[in-house]
Amino acid sequence: MNFITFPEHQLRSFTYSVFKKMGCSDDHAELATDVLIKSDLRGIDSHGVARLSGYVRLWEKCRINATPDIRIVHETPTTATVDGDGGLGLVVAPFAMKVAIEKAEKYGSGWVAVKNSNHFGIAGYHALMAVEKDMIGISMTNASPLVAPTYSNERLLGTNPMCYAFPAGKYPPLIVDMATAAAANGKLEIAQRANKDVPNGWIQDKDGQNSINPNELKKGGSLLPLGSDKDHGSHKGYGLGATVDILSAVLSGANYGPWAPPFVSFLEPPSDPVGEGIGHFLGAMRVDGFRPAVDFKAHLDNWISRFKTAKAVEVGKKVIIPGEPEHEFEVERKINGIPVIDVVVNDLNLLAEKIGVAKLA
Amino acid sequence: MNFITFPEHQLRSFTYSVFKKMGCSDDHAELATDVLIKSDLRGIDSHGVARLSGYVRLWEKCRINATPDIRIVHETPTTATVDGDGGLGLVVAPFAMKVAIEKAEKYGSGWVAVKNSNHFGIAGYHALMAVEKDMIGISMTNASPLVAPTYSNERLLGTNPMCYAFPAGKYPPLIVDMATAAAANGKLEIAQRANKDVPNGWIQDKDGQNSINPNELKKGGSLLPLGSDKDHGSHKGYGLGATVDILSAVLSGANYGPWAPPFVSFLEPPSDPVGEGIGHFLGAMRVDGFRPAVDFKAHLDNWISRFKTAKAVEVGKKVIIPGEPEHEFEVERKINGIPVIDVVVNDLNLLAEKIGVAKLA
Repeated sequence: MNFITFPEHQLRSFTYSVFKKMGCSDDHAELATDVLIKSDLRGIDSHGVARLSGYVRLWEKCRINATPDIRIVHETPTTATVDGDGGLGLVVAPFAMKVAIEKAEKYGSGWVAVKNSNHFGIAGYHALMAVEKDMIGISMTNASPLVAPTYSNERLLGTNPMCYAFPAGKYPPLIVDMATAAAANGKLEIAQRANKDVPNGWIQDKDGQNSINPNELKKGGSLLPLGSDKDHGSHKGYGLGATVDILSAVLSGANYGPWAPPFVSFLEPPSDPVGEGIGHFLGAMRVDGFRPAVDFKAHLDNWISRFKTAKAVEVGKKVIIPGEPEHEFEVERKINGIPVIDVVVNDLNLLAEKIGVAKLA
Repeated sequence: MNFITFPEHQLRSFTYSVFKKMGCSDDHAELATDVLIKSDLRGIDSHGVARLSGYVRLWEKCRINATPDIRIVHETPTTATVDGDGGLGLVVAPFAMKVAIEKAEKYGSGWVAVKNSNHFGIAGYHALMAVEKDMIGISMTNASPLVAPTYSNERLLGTNPMCYAFPAGKYPPLIVDMATAAAANGKLEIAQRANKDVPNGWIQDKDGQNSINPNELKKGGSLLPLGSDKDHGSHKGYGLGATVDILSAVLSGANYGPWAPPFVSFLEPPSDPVGEGIGHFLGAMRVDGFRPAVDFKAHLDNWISRFKTAKAVEVGKKVIIPGEPEHEFEVERKINGIPVIDVVVNDLNLLAEKIGVAKLA
């Protein structure tokens, strides 16, 4: 595996040119680019430019609308449902989070369910929009079914991530951003490419037997919920995945459970939809709706200090503050550039050729 | 182990008489009783009358205030912080949930952080208060530190449960109510009493080595977060426990992390508190703030039907809908009574003798 390192601005302008070529408006192309590049900056390489050609393929199949009329279709002072009009989740979710933030500014909190959307990138991007306003940010999304609930071998849930982000004082924001499966699909893909076994407890084969072969997933196997098996609490991971599915899709009018349309263009969406597109759920709460922000931040700093200095079991493996590794990546990559693996660079250059924009390198 | 089965009303009147003897008002005694009995009815025996003498012992040590002045100390239209005045969490949390529901009735959603409280019983009780009003209910609480974050052998978090409850149509409410540790402390206590090993992945000893001996917990060991180890996502369980801790205690001004006071009377609270008591976080969102409640319920029924009929890996082990087993217990025990294990009956009768109320049996 070889990496080519690009300065941030170069990946940005390439990505922007691709979204413009899809027909996105300047604003949408810029926003979608920002979500993808933020992911690469933060070291979440699976969700950044590596996904760009996937979005284009869905657009080519008319499963992504590049010029959506994103709008509120139902609301109260602090709640709303947004119809994403089949647009990129990368622009639909920030629209919805802005609505949540505006409601929070007026009334203390704001909550927006989204239907008729697509993959929204990293959950953390949207939650961080609230943090910048001294709010607590919450974001979640349902996704293509890959995870089997406890006791079943049917894929009924996505890896359905949930994210909670909190503003700190002297430290970077504390961000819990996690798939509700034992392992995210990106980790499986890495093992598949490398032809390596995965830990027992990540997946099962099509008959529901535990497996360490990551390729079982392509043969009808499924990911396991966080907890891996009943003895270790897989019913909790299943319950969390269900919560994300219900808040994102049952509440908004999107497709839920096994009806969620696949993110990949080579799989067709179910022919009997129960809603529109996939769904998200976004929330913002003003910290000073509960106590002065300066007090909250001082205590969160104290929390972080205490956990950072917790006794370590092994020398060199310290307790990690959620969101800290991603922050360190961002600081470093803003200076030194973003390494992109050669297969992704090739994929992006083939894409450039196909749609007629300047190649990356 | 022998069980004695009591009709619901008998356990209720006994529990009420104990809370009255502590000096609770009629209303508070009735409410606290309802929370505990609901737990026993729903089959969560660890959190019902089995805990009654524990509450009394904390009251005897002046660590629970039987006549609290529970009040809102900070608010916006949809957020509030409640000071529980050291009262029973069993009455403080329902007070706070009422505030959240009232705000949701007016503005679509309501969110209340609580400080200066104590153990609030089952999280599900409070979340269900919202469900009765066709709202989505959310409840969480921090708790005595027993769980070590990934890579550490220090107990820095409680089992910190989170609960999400949704109103369904023809089915009972869907309720995800879960500790964020791999196993709840109640399960450890059962294994300790029976002198039985526990599954690998539930606990570690004081040095941070995995153990299957449940008694290690009494010798400085700790519970492991949901996920059990880093390979299986224990950092996610740790992140969820952190989220509950921050929303419940850092946001409200309660004690967080290792400063959370212990629920047991024989352990003293830390001498350097960072807040007041323990904290809770409660929320309510009107379903019809997003889409008509009748539509939401029809789709949640469809979700439940689909998951109930999912293919099973083993004959006889069907997919369980979160909250369904507890609902079945409640229906059955309302008719046939509540079985209480003999050691708890003895404990309650000793309590009755000590404080001077009529014995249970």
